Amino acid sequence: MPGVGQKSAQRIAFHLLRTSREDAERLAQAVLDVKDKLGLCEICNNISDTSSCLYCRDTSRDHTVICVIEEPPNIVPIEVTRQFNGVYHVLHGAISPLRGIGPEQLRIKSLLARLGTGNISEIILATNPTVEGEGTAVYLSRLLKPLGLKVTRIAMGIPVGSDLEFADEVTMTKSLENRREM
Amino acid sequence: MPGVGQKSAQRIAFHLLRTSREDAERLAQAVLDVKDKLGLCEICNNISDTSSCLYCRDTSRDHTVICVIEEPPNIVPIEVTRQFNGVYHVLHGAISPLRGIGPEQLRIKSLLARLGTGNISEIILATNPTVEGEGTAVYLSRLLKPLGLKVTRIAMGIPVGSDLEFADEVTMTKSLENRREM
Repeated sequence: MPGVGQKSAQRIAFHLLRTSREDAERLAQAVLDVKDKLGLCEICNNISDTSSCLYCRDTSRDHTVICVIEEPPNIVPIEVTRQFNGVYHVLHGAISPLRGIGPEQLRIKSLLARLGTGNISEIILATNPTVEGEGTAVYLSRLLKPLGLKVTRIAMGIPVGSDLEFADEVTMTKSLENRREM
Repeated sequence: MPGVGQKSAQRIAFHLLRTSREDAERLAQAVLDVKDKLGLCEICNNISDTSSCLYCRDTSRDHTVICVIEEPPNIVPIEVTRQFNGVYHVLHGAISPLRGIGPEQLRIKSLLARLGTGNISEIILATNPTVEGEGTAVYLSRLLKPLGLKVTRIAMGIPVGSDLEFADEVTMTKSLENRREM
Protein backbone atom coordinates (compact mmCIF):
# COMPACT_ATOMS: atom_id res chain seq x y z
CA MET A 1 0.00 0.00 0.00
CA PRO A 2 1.34 3.48 -0.82
CA GLY A 3 3.01 5.20 2.14
CA VAL A 4 3.02 2.02 4.22
CA GLY A 5 6.48 0.50 4.42
CA GLN A 6 7.73 -2.49 6.41
CA LYS A 7 7.92 -0.60 9.71
CA SER A 8 4.46 1.00 9.40
CA ALA A 9 2.98 -2.37 8.40
CA GLN A 10 4.44 -3.98 11.51
CA ARG A 11 3.11 -1.15 13.69
CA ILE A 12 -0.39 -1.54 12.17
CA ALA A 13 -0.31 -5.34 12.66
CA PHE A 14 0.60 -4.99 16.36
CA HIS A 15 -2.07 -2.29 16.75
CA LEU A 16 -4.69 -4.68 15.31
CA LEU A 17 -3.60 -7.40 17.75
CA ARG A 18 -4.27 -5.01 20.64
CA THR A 19 -7.72 -3.77 19.42
CA SER A 20 -11.03 -5.53 20.09
CA ARG A 21 -12.60 -8.00 17.66
CA GLU A 22 -15.40 -5.46 16.95
CA ASP A 23 -12.94 -2.73 15.90
CA ALA A 24 -11.17 -5.17 13.59
CA GLU A 25 -14.52 -6.15 12.09
CA ARG A 26 -15.41 -2.47 11.52
CA LEU A 27 -12.11 -1.89 9.70
CA ALA A 28 -12.59 -5.05 7.61
CA GLN A 29 -16.08 -3.90 6.68
CA ALA A 30 -14.82 -0.41 5.79
CA VAL A 31 -12.26 -1.97 3.44
CA LEU A 32 -14.99 -4.00 1.74
CA ASP A 33 -17.33 -0.97 1.58
CA VAL A 34 -14.74 0.91 -0.47
CA LYS A 35 -15.03 -1.79 -3.13
CA ASP A 36 -18.77 -2.44 -2.81
CA LYS A 37 -20.28 1.01 -2.24
CA LEU A 38 -17.98 3.41 -4.07
CA GLY A 39 -18.12 3.71 -7.81
CA LEU A 40 -17.67 6.38 -10.43
CA CYS A 41 -20.05 9.25 -11.07
CA GLU A 42 -21.95 8.48 -14.28
CA ILE A 43 -21.52 12.06 -15.46
CA CYS A 44 -17.98 13.13 -14.55
CA ASN A 45 -16.22 9.87 -13.50
CA ASN A 46 -15.37 11.29 -10.07
CA ILE A 47 -15.44 8.81 -7.16
CA SER A 48 -18.94 8.69 -5.71
CA ASP A 49 -21.23 6.53 -3.55
CA THR A 50 -24.23 7.48 -5.69
CA SER A 51 -24.78 7.42 -9.46
CA SER A 52 -23.92 11.13 -9.69
CA CYS A 53 -21.29 12.78 -7.48
CA LEU A 54 -21.85 15.70 -5.10
CA TYR A 55 -20.59 18.26 -7.64
CA CYS A 56 -22.75 16.98 -10.49
CA ARG A 57 -25.80 16.85 -8.15
CA ASP A 58 -25.27 20.40 -6.85
CA THR A 59 -27.71 22.69 -8.68
CA SER A 60 -26.07 25.81 -7.23
CA ARG A 61 -22.95 25.12 -9.33
CA ASP A 62 -22.46 26.38 -12.88
CA HIS A 63 -22.92 23.30 -15.08
CA THR A 64 -21.85 25.18 -18.22
CA VAL A 65 -18.19 25.31 -17.09
CA ILE A 66 -16.33 21.98 -17.05
CA CYS A 67 -12.89 21.64 -15.49
CA VAL A 68 -11.02 18.63 -16.93
CA ILE A 69 -8.57 16.92 -14.54
CA GLU A 70 -6.43 13.79 -14.61
CA GLU A 71 -7.36 12.08 -11.33
CA PRO A 72 -10.08 12.47 -8.65
CA PRO A 73 -7.64 13.81 -5.97
CA ASN A 74 -6.92 16.80 -8.27
CA ILE A 75 -10.35 18.17 -7.31
CA VAL A 76 -9.07 18.97 -3.79
CA PRO A 77 -6.55 21.74 -4.63
CA ILE A 78 -9.10 23.38 -6.95
CA GLU A 79 -11.94 23.23 -4.42
CA VAL A 80 -9.88 24.75 -1.58
CA THR A 81 -9.37 27.90 -3.66
CA ARG A 82 -13.17 28.53 -3.55
CA GLN A 83 -12.69 30.26 -6.92
CA PHE A 84 -14.24 27.57 -9.09
CA ASN A 85 -17.97 26.96 -9.11
CA GLY A 86 -18.32 24.80 -12.19
CA VAL A 87 -18.31 21.03 -12.53
CA TYR A 88 -15.54 18.52 -13.23
CA HIS A 89 -14.59 15.79 -15.66
CA VAL A 90 -12.07 13.19 -14.54
CA LEU A 91 -10.00 11.59 -17.33
CA HIS A 92 -8.47 8.91 -15.07
CA GLY A 93 -4.99 9.41 -16.49
CA ALA A 94 -3.09 11.31 -19.14
CA ILE A 95 -1.90 10.42 -22.62
CA SER A 96 1.52 8.76 -22.28
CA PRO A 97 2.89 6.98 -25.36
CA LEU A 98 5.87 5.72 -23.35
CA ARG A 99 3.58 3.89 -20.96
CA GLY A 100 1.24 2.81 -23.74
CA ILE A 101 -1.64 5.05 -22.66
CA GLY A 102 -3.49 6.51 -25.63
CA PRO A 103 -6.58 8.76 -25.77
CA GLU A 104 -8.85 5.70 -26.05
CA GLN A 105 -7.83 4.58 -22.53
CA LEU A 106 -9.00 7.89 -21.03
CA ARG A 107 -12.57 8.97 -20.27
CA ILE A 108 -12.80 11.25 -23.29
CA LYS A 109 -15.87 9.68 -24.94
CA SER A 110 -18.01 10.51 -21.88
CA LEU A 111 -16.69 14.10 -22.04
CA LEU A 112 -17.78 14.42 -25.67
CA ALA A 113 -21.17 12.93 -24.73
CA ARG A 114 -21.62 15.66 -22.09
CA LEU A 115 -20.87 18.41 -24.59
CA GLY A 116 -23.68 17.22 -26.82
CA THR A 117 -26.31 17.50 -24.11
CA GLY A 118 -26.09 21.05 -22.81
CA ASN A 119 -24.86 24.56 -23.34
CA ILE A 120 -21.17 24.61 -22.42
CA SER A 121 -19.59 28.05 -22.03
CA GLU A 122 -16.03 26.97 -21.21
CA ILE A 123 -13.80 23.93 -20.85
CA ILE A 124 -10.88 24.53 -18.45
CA LEU A 125 -8.04 22.07 -19.06
CA ALA A 126 -6.48 21.55 -15.63
CA THR A 127 -4.35 18.51 -16.42
CA ASN A 128 -0.94 18.61 -14.71
CA PRO A 129 1.78 20.89 -16.12
CA THR A 130 3.92 17.82 -16.94
CA VAL A 131 4.84 16.47 -20.40
CA GLU A 132 1.91 14.01 -20.28
CA GLY A 133 -0.58 16.53 -18.87
CA GLU A 134 0.44 19.19 -21.38
CA GLY A 135 0.21 16.69 -24.25
CA THR A 136 -3.25 15.66 -23.10
CA ALA A 137 -4.33 19.33 -22.94
CA VAL A 138 -3.09 19.96 -26.49
CA TYR A 139 -4.84 16.80 -27.72
CA LEU A 140 -8.13 17.82 -26.08
CA SER A 141 -7.95 21.40 -27.32
CA ARG A 142 -7.48 20.17 -30.91
CA LEU A 143 -10.46 17.88 -30.41
CA LEU A 144 -12.75 20.46 -28.78
CA LYS A 145 -11.94 23.75 -30.49
CA PRO A 146 -13.33 22.65 -33.90
CA LEU A 147 -16.64 22.11 -32.07
CA GLY A 148 -16.75 25.86 -31.42
CA LEU A 149 -16.03 25.57 -27.70
CA LYS A 150 -14.05 28.02 -25.55
CA VAL A 151 -11.08 25.99 -24.32
CA THR A 152 -8.73 27.42 -21.68
CA ARG A 153 -5.60 26.14 -19.91
CA ILE A 154 -4.62 26.85 -16.30
CA ALA A 155 -1.58 29.12 -16.01
CA MET A 156 1.94 27.86 -15.56
CA GLY A 157 4.37 30.26 -13.93
CA ILE A 158 6.32 31.15 -10.83
CA PRO A 159 4.52 30.03 -7.65
CA VAL A 160 3.17 32.83 -5.47
CA GLY A 161 5.60 33.71 -2.66
CA SER A 162 8.59 32.40 -4.60
CA ASP A 163 11.55 34.31 -6.04
CA LEU A 164 12.71 34.70 -9.66
CA GLU A 165 16.04 33.32 -8.45
CA PHE A 166 14.52 29.87 -7.84
CA ALA A 167 12.60 29.65 -11.11
CA ASP A 168 13.80 26.97 -13.52
CA GLU A 169 14.32 27.82 -17.18
CA VAL A 170 11.10 26.28 -18.52
CA THR A 171 8.90 27.82 -15.81
CA MET A 172 10.51 31.25 -16.33
CA THR A 173 9.87 30.92 -20.08
CA LYS A 174 6.19 30.07 -19.46
CA SER A 175 5.93 32.93 -16.97
CA LEU A 176 7.19 35.40 -19.60
CA GLU A 177 5.02 33.89 -22.36
CA ASN A 178 1.88 33.93 -20.21
CA ARG A 179 2.34 37.51 -19.01
CA ARG A 180 -0.89 39.45 -18.72
CA GLU A 181 -1.71 43.07 -19.23
CA MET A 182 -2.25 44.82 -15.88
CA MET B 1 29.98 37.10 4.05
CA PRO B 2 26.91 35.22 2.80
CA GLY B 3 27.44 31.47 2.51
CA VAL B 4 30.74 31.57 4.38
CA GLY B 5 30.39 30.24 7.92
CA GLN B 6 33.05 29.64 10.56
CA LYS B 7 34.29 26.39 9.00
CA SER B 8 34.51 27.74 5.46
CA ALA B 9 36.26 30.87 6.73
CA GLN B 10 38.86 28.72 8.48
CA ARG B 11 39.36 26.62 5.35
CA ILE B 12 39.85 29.77 3.23
CA ALA B 13 42.31 31.20 5.79
CA PHE B 14 44.44 28.02 5.74
CA HIS B 15 44.26 27.93 1.92
CA LEU B 16 45.59 31.51 1.78
CA LEU B 17 48.47 30.55 4.10
CA ARG B 18 49.46 27.83 1.64
CA THR B 19 49.22 29.96 -1.56
CA SER B 20 51.98 32.20 -2.89
CA ARG B 21 52.27 35.91 -2.08
CA GLU B 22 51.42 36.73 -5.74
CA ASP B 23 48.14 34.77 -5.64
CA ALA B 24 47.16 36.52 -2.41
CA GLU B 25 47.94 39.87 -4.01
CA ARG B 26 45.81 39.01 -7.05
CA LEU B 27 42.86 38.12 -4.79
CA ALA B 28 43.34 41.31 -2.76
CA GLN B 29 43.39 43.36 -5.95
CA ALA B 30 40.26 41.59 -7.24
CA VAL B 31 38.44 42.50 -4.03
CA LEU B 32 39.43 46.16 -4.44
CA ASP B 33 38.51 46.09 -8.15
CA VAL B 34 34.93 45.17 -7.25
CA LYS B 35 34.64 48.43 -5.33
CA ASP B 36 36.73 50.59 -7.64
CA LYS B 37 35.79 49.41 -11.12
CA LEU B 38 32.17 48.23 -10.84
CA GLY B 39 29.35 50.71 -10.69
CA LEU B 40 25.78 50.99 -11.86
CA CYS B 41 24.68 51.35 -15.47
CA GLU B 42 23.56 54.96 -15.97
CA ILE B 43 20.53 53.80 -17.95
CA CYS B 44 19.13 50.70 -16.20
CA ASN B 45 21.01 50.60 -12.85
CA ASN B 46 22.37 47.12 -13.55
CA ILE B 47 25.88 46.37 -12.25
CA SER B 48 28.42 47.37 -14.89
CA ASP B 49 32.10 48.20 -15.35
CA THR B 50 31.24 50.84 -17.92
CA SER B 51 28.79 53.75 -17.86
CA SER B 52 26.20 51.64 -19.71
CA CYS B 53 25.81 47.90 -19.16
CA LEU B 54 26.15 45.16 -21.81
CA TYR B 55 22.38 44.97 -22.34
CA CYS B 56 21.89 48.71 -22.74
CA ARG B 57 24.90 48.88 -25.11
CA ASP B 58 23.66 45.99 -27.28
CA THR B 59 22.05 47.48 -30.39
CA SER B 60 20.69 44.07 -31.50
CA ARG B 61 18.28 44.11 -28.52
CA ASP B 62 14.81 45.65 -28.62
CA HIS B 63 15.12 48.88 -26.62
CA THR B 64 11.35 49.51 -26.77
CA VAL B 65 10.62 46.68 -24.31
CA ILE B 66 11.75 47.23 -20.72
CA CYS B 67 11.68 44.42 -18.16
CA VAL B 68 11.55 45.82 -14.60
CA ILE B 69 13.23 43.68 -11.93
CA GLU B 70 14.05 44.06 -8.24
CA GLU B 71 17.76 43.16 -8.13
CA PRO B 72 20.60 42.66 -10.66
CA PRO B 73 20.80 38.84 -10.09
CA ASN B 74 17.17 38.57 -11.34
CA ILE B 75 18.50 39.15 -14.86
CA VAL B 76 20.09 35.67 -14.87
CA PRO B 77 16.91 33.50 -14.82
CA ILE B 78 15.35 35.70 -17.51
CA GLU B 79 18.43 35.63 -19.76
CA VAL B 80 18.79 31.82 -19.61
CA THR B 81 15.32 31.42 -21.14
CA ARG B 82 16.59 33.15 -24.36
CA GLN B 83 12.98 34.33 -24.78
CA PHE B 84 13.55 37.95 -23.87
CA ASN B 85 15.40 40.32 -26.17
CA GLY B 86 14.49 43.66 -24.61
CA VAL B 87 16.35 45.71 -22.01
CA TYR B 88 16.12 45.86 -18.22
CA HIS B 89 15.49 48.31 -15.42
CA VAL B 90 16.73 47.41 -11.94
CA LEU B 91 14.76 48.95 -9.06
CA HIS B 92 17.26 47.85 -6.38
CA GLY B 93 14.55 46.64 -4.04
CA ALA B 94 10.78 46.47 -3.64
CA ILE B 95 8.29 48.61 -1.78
CA SER B 96 8.06 47.31 1.79
CA PRO B 97 6.25 49.51 4.32
CA LEU B 98 7.20 47.10 7.14
CA ARG B 99 10.90 47.63 6.42
CA GLY B 100 10.40 51.33 5.78
CA ILE B 101 11.13 51.10 2.05
CA GLY B 102 8.92 53.43 0.03
CA PRO B 103 8.82 54.14 -3.71
CA GLU B 104 11.23 57.08 -3.27
CA GLN B 105 14.01 54.66 -2.15
CA LEU B 106 13.73 52.69 -5.42
CA ARG B 107 15.13 53.63 -8.83
CA ILE B 108 11.75 54.70 -10.19
CA LYS B 109 12.69 58.26 -11.18
CA SER B 110 15.30 56.97 -13.64
CA LEU B 111 12.65 54.61 -15.09
CA LEU B 112 10.29 57.53 -15.70
CA ALA B 113 13.17 59.47 -17.26
CA ARG B 114 13.76 56.61 -19.73
CA LEU B 115 10.13 56.58 -20.76
CA GLY B 116 10.30 60.23 -21.74
CA THR B 117 13.19 59.71 -24.15
CA GLY B 118 12.06 56.99 -26.56
CA ASN B 119 9.20 54.97 -27.98
CA ILE B 120 8.35 52.27 -25.44
CA SER B 121 6.08 49.47 -26.66
CA GLU B 122 5.83 47.46 -23.42
CA ILE B 123 6.89 47.47 -19.78
CA ILE B 124 7.10 43.94 -18.32
CA LEU B 125 6.88 43.98 -14.53
CA ALA B 126 9.03 41.03 -13.41
CA THR B 127 9.26 41.86 -9.71
CA ASN B 128 9.06 38.77 -7.49
CA PRO B 129 5.65 37.12 -6.88
CA THR B 130 5.90 38.00 -3.17
CA VAL B 131 3.77 40.48 -1.21
CA GLU B 132 6.43 43.21 -1.69
CA GLY B 133 7.05 42.40 -5.37
CA GLU B 134 3.33 42.27 -6.16
CA GLY B 135 2.74 45.54 -4.29
CA THR B 136 5.55 47.18 -6.25
CA ALA B 137 4.08 45.88 -9.53
CA VAL B 138 0.65 47.30 -8.67
CA TYR B 139 2.22 50.65 -7.67
CA LEU B 140 4.19 50.85 -10.94
CA SER B 141 1.22 49.85 -13.10
CA ARG B 142 -0.89 52.64 -11.50
CA LEU B 143 1.95 55.06 -12.20
CA LEU B 144 2.64 53.96 -15.79
CA LYS B 145 -0.77 53.08 -17.23
CA PRO B 146 -2.08 56.69 -17.12
CA LEU B 147 0.90 57.56 -19.37
CA GLY B 148 -0.68 55.35 -22.04
CA LEU B 149 1.92 52.56 -21.76
CA LYS B 150 1.30 48.82 -22.20
CA VAL B 151 2.13 47.33 -18.80
CA THR B 152 2.27 43.54 -18.35
CA ARG B 153 3.01 41.25 -15.40
CA ILE B 154 4.82 37.90 -15.58
CA ALA B 155 2.52 34.93 -14.93
CA MET B 156 2.11 33.28 -11.56
CA GLY B 157 0.97 29.67 -11.61
CA ILE B 158 1.94 26.07 -11.15
CA PRO B 159 5.61 25.44 -12.05
CA VAL B 160 6.19 23.34 -15.17
CA GLY B 161 6.75 19.67 -14.29
CA SER B 162 4.85 19.97 -11.02
CA ASP B 163 1.53 18.38 -10.03
CA LEU B 164 -1.77 20.01 -9.04
CA GLU B 165 -1.48 18.01 -5.83
CA PHE B 166 1.49 20.10 -4.66
CA ALA B 167 0.00 23.49 -5.53
CA ASP B 168 -0.74 25.75 -2.58
CA GLU B 169 -4.10 27.53 -2.37
CA VAL B 170 -2.91 30.97 -3.51
CA THR B 171 -0.90 29.61 -6.46
CA MET B 172 -3.83 27.41 -7.57
CA THR B 173 -6.13 30.46 -7.39
CA LYS B 174 -3.68 32.49 -9.55
CA SER B 175 -3.36 29.57 -11.96
CA LEU B 176 -7.15 29.46 -12.44
CA GLU B 177 -7.46 33.26 -12.68
CA ASN B 178 -4.64 33.55 -15.21
CA ARG B 179 -5.91 30.74 -17.44
CA ARG B 180 -5.46 31.41 -21.15
CA GLU B 181 -7.50 30.49 -24.15
CA MET B 182 -5.80 27.67 -26.08
